This record gives sequence, C-alpha cells and structure tokens, in this order.
Amino acid sequence: MDLLIVGSIAFDNIKTPFGKVNKILGGSAIYSSIAASNFVRPIIVGVVGEDFERKYFDLLKKHNIDVSNIKIEKGKTFHWEGYYDYDLNIAHTVDTQLNVFLKFNPQLSSEAKDVKFVFLGNIDPVLQLSVYQQVKNPKIVACDTMNYWIEKKFVQLKKLLKKIDILFINEAEIRQLTKEYNVIKSARKVLSWGTKIVIVKRGEYGVMCFYKNKIFVLPAYPLEKVFDPTGAGDSFAGGVMGFLAYKLKNNNVLTEQILRQSIVFGTVTASFCVEDFGIKKLYKITYKDILQRYREIKHLVHFEMI
Amino acid sequence: MDLLIVGSIAFDNIKTPFGKVNKILGGSAIYSSIAASNFVRPIIVGVVGEDFERKYFDLLKKHNIDVSNIKIEKGKTFHWEGYYDYDLNIAHTVDTQLNVFLKFNPQLSSEAKDVKFVFLGNIDPVLQLSVYQQVKNPKIVACDTMNYWIEKKFVQLKKLLKKIDILFINEAEIRQLTKEYNVIKSARKVLSWGTKIVIVKRGEYGVMCFYKNKIFVLPAYPLEKVFDPTGAGDSFAGGVMGFLAYKLKNNNVLTEQILRQSIVFGTVTASFCVEDFGIKKLYKITYKDILQRYREIKHLVHFEMI
Repeated sequence: MDLLIVGSIAFDNIKTPFGKVNKILGGSAIYSSIAASNFVRPIIVGVVGEDFERKYFDLLKKHNIDVSNIKIEKGKTFHWEGYYDYDLNIAHTVDTQLNVFLKFNPQLSSEAKDVKFVFLGNIDPVLQLSVYQQVKNPKIVACDTMNYWIEKKFVQLKKLLKKIDILFINEAEIRQLTKEYNVIKSARKVLSWGTKIVIVKRGEYGVMCFYKNKIFVLPAYPLEKVFDPTGAGDSFAGGVMGFLAYKLKNNNVLTEQILRQSIVFGTVTASFCVEDFGIKKLYKITYKDILQRYREIKHLVHFEMI
Repeated sequence: MDLLIVGSIAFDNIKTPFGKVNKILGGSAIYSSIAASNFVRPIIVGVVGEDFERKYFDLLKKHNIDVSNIKIEKGKTFHWEGYYDYDLNIAHTVDTQLNVFLKFNPQLSSEAKDVKFVFLGNIDPVLQLSVYQQVKNPKIVACDTMNYWIEKKFVQLKKLLKKIDILFINEAEIRQLTKEYNVIKSARKVLSWGTKIVIVKRGEYGVMCFYKNKIFVLPAYPLEKVFDPTGAGDSFAGGVMGFLAYKLKNNNVLTEQILRQSIVFGTVTASFCVEDFGIKKLYKITYKDILQRYREIKHLVHFEMI
C-alpha cells in the first residue's frame, strides 16, 4: 500500500489577487504526498535544509507520510517565490533559490526500493531516471515535468518517457515537448515514444487522458473561488497515483475503468488544494470529502443516451 | 416542428493555417439553420443583397430550411473577412461590410409569428427585441451576442436577457457582460437578471451550462484537425435549439435531461462544422453521423461510481 514520491520540498512565498503568504510549506513532493495519503502511505524522497524544523516532519507524519527518506543537508531548504494575476492559470516566478536542492542526489532506503508504485515529481530528468533505476520491480511509474527540463534536458527526458507508464504534463508543455499544436496529435506522439498513458492537464478546463487509441476527458470540478492554484497539478497527480496504488495493491490489473476513476479522484483532490493557500485546505480534508465531490462531478457530466 | 432563426447571412473570406477561401456562404443564421435542420424545419429571418444568387436559396431549401422570410434588398450581401492563427480560438477580423444589413428591419410573416421556438442569432439587441416582440406566444427563446453589443447596447441587451430562456455566450464575453472574472459567478449574475439558462461556450474546451443552482459541463468532441472554427458557436446553438424544438414539440416539459441532451447534440453538430471550411462539412452530414458522435462522446466522459 505504499507509493514512492520523489520531488521538491520547499518554502514558498505566494501572492494571488486574494492575499499573500510567506514561507509556507510547498513543493511537488509535499502536495502530491498529502493528496496521495488519502489512499495509501506515501514515502517521500527529498532533501531539506537545516531550517526545516521538526514541526514540518511531524505535520507530514501525522498525515500518514513516511519521511525516513527525506535527507537533511547543511544550508537552506529550496525556496520559490511567485504570484498569480486574475488569470490563475499562469504562475509568474519572482525568485527561485535552489539551496540544498542543488546537490540533491536521491538514495533510496531498502524499503523504498521495494515499492511498487512510483511518482517522479517535477525535477531534473537525470534524478528521475536515477530514482527509477533504484526501484527494483515497480508496477506503475509516473512522472511529471516542465518547460525548463523540456528545453534543457530533452534527451534524458525522452529516455525516461520510453520507460514510464504515465506522463502528467500540461497543455503548453506537451506542445513544446512534441512540437505539435494539436493536443491529440501531441499525445499520440508521446505514446509512440513508449509512454503508456498520457494525461494532459488543462487547468480550470480539466484533463484529457490518452491510452492506446482511447481518450477520456474530464472537466475540472467547478469552483466559484480559486484562491491559490499552487500545487494543483501535484495534488492531482498525487490523487491519481494514490488511488492507483490503493486499487492495484493486490496485483489487480489496471483496467480502463480504474484509470478513469483515478483521474476523477485526482481532479477532486486538486479541487480542494486550490481553495486556500498552500496545503492549508488539502491537509484538512478526508476521504469522505473527496467521495462527496466524486459523486458531484459524476452528476455534473451526466447525460442520458438517446 | 419549426424553429425561427434570425441572424446574419453573409459572404465570408476566411484564412486559416490550412488554407484560404473567398466569398463562401456564412453568417450566424446560415450556420445555425443548417445545424438545426437535422432536427426540425428552421425558418430563417434575414436580409441579402442582389448578389445572393438563386443557387443559395436552393441550397438552403434542399436542407429543409424555409427561406420565405429572407428579404432581398438592393445592394450587396453582408461581407466578413477574417483569419485565424494556430490558436483557432481567436478570430481576427480584417474587414466587415454591413451592406444591406445596415438597414435590416426584420418583419415576420404570419406563419413565422406563430413559431414556438426562437433563436435570436448574434445581431443588434434592438433587432433581437423586435423579433422577440413579433412572435406571438413563444415557448423557448434563446439568444447569442458578442463583445460589440455588450459594449454599445448594454441596456437593450440586458432588457432582452430579462425575457429570454437561454443565453449562448462565450467565456470572454460573459466576463465582459458581468464584470466578473470567475465564470460561475458570471453565470449566476446573468441568471439573477432573469435569463433561465446560461450556456457558456469555451471553444475547444467545451461548454458549461447553468440553470437554477445546477451545472452541466461537457468537453468538446476531440478533433485531431480543426480546419476552420467559423460558425462553431452558431452551429452549436443551432443543434441545441433544433433538438429542443423537436423534443418539446408536443408540449413536453423542458427537463434537465432534455436540456443536457440538447447540449450534447449542439456539441456534436459543431464538431462537424469545424472540420472543413464554412458550411462544407456541416451541410453534408446526416442525423446518423450526429448520433454516432453522440455515442462516442458519451463513452468519452464515462466513468463508474465508487
């Protein structure tokens, strides 16, 4: 029932049209592991600085997250500062301080190497590959990426994409990755490289999932107030991978229906994330809250046959 | 089984990344009536110039469209020229020649006045109101509008919105209309003005439909090649209204399920429109083709409950 998650652990300064916060806990590994912990026990692989106080470890442990693969290094924790205007789909970066993340070289514990489900959060594809190679016999491996790595580490990223089961990527990024404007053509290209499932994130418009020659489309859960979109993509991926790890734990086969359900769980989990700053709301919700929105979104897209 | 449609009849010059055409039949009344004619007999109310040859009337008549309320005036038919870049969501207008449309003053025949279903295509709200007032006892009245009228004729448009059942509007326009960024809040505002149903068009991302305190969301039918988006919104509205006019002809009540189904029919009809220039593909398809995509889109959004 474990899910290995590698990614960034950060302190963020965030400004949105609705307010401003400083030095709040963030990073892809944090959002995705809290999201996934509604379904399974996530094991975070990451690095923090000496300023990462004990209370943060406690906070993660309380949420059923294994922190024994988080390394504490001399120096400061990774820091990101950014803001959003009314178009909350676009994050404007003001400052990035890699700090201890600069020398991050993930080394998995023997327990972590045995994990069957792996989410390689958005970090250098070289590190993603390193983690991938350390895991002994994974059942499902997913990864996320971003424009920076597509530009700077295309060869390594493509090498990774050949091996993995699921790619989480946003619309602009898959266009950049494949040099195809049409998203369906883009996704087909990535599938032809070897990735088994491509999930394209379209922000407030939801997601499209491509596998074999099939497509699943799901709108986002409609919200009257999106407060802070930071972590939406990571909590989406965490929800998807958490549900898959839970559902396939007894060697069940990944069916089309389980895949579709996992995407609904991811969508619903992410909808809570964006309703408050950082992990504030995501941390508080329970599986019951998630199930409630799962039912609502089912009704939202329902229509009868003719 | 009739549907009254008022709107523009035009000759368009269109350029997309995939080609260029000159003087092709277009306009909101043309697209929406061809779309609707798969379900009912549309009656177009409009104006054309002396250059509108007999072959165009024949073409419409052949598609089960009543042209007896199209007036021929001295001068030239309305002309629009525009182009699209790779982001096919945005139409760039190069030239608009109103011509005979400048003095358009719709006068309904007695038959037209008795029609129960009305689509007021995107024209001056003053003319939309005039048509609305001429129809004796309509059952469902829908309208479309655009940024120009929101800016120039806000008072008249708001007067119309109080009276009608369905507003078709795109995302940017409803934000402009309501001065609300969030689309859900925007739609709620329009509902509070008196419009019963608000359908927000989101281009390649599909539609959101708001009624009472409920929401229906449907993605667009996924296409690998969008050739020419001209007329997508109008053929969508034509499909919705055509199905509603057909389904409610025997005094049936507009249920939530019928409304949702009509939106699926609109979506599917519009998906054919954008696959070739102008009305080329839309003109050729049959109800059987529409039904086929209805079934596909049903599968596309399907997922099982937990």
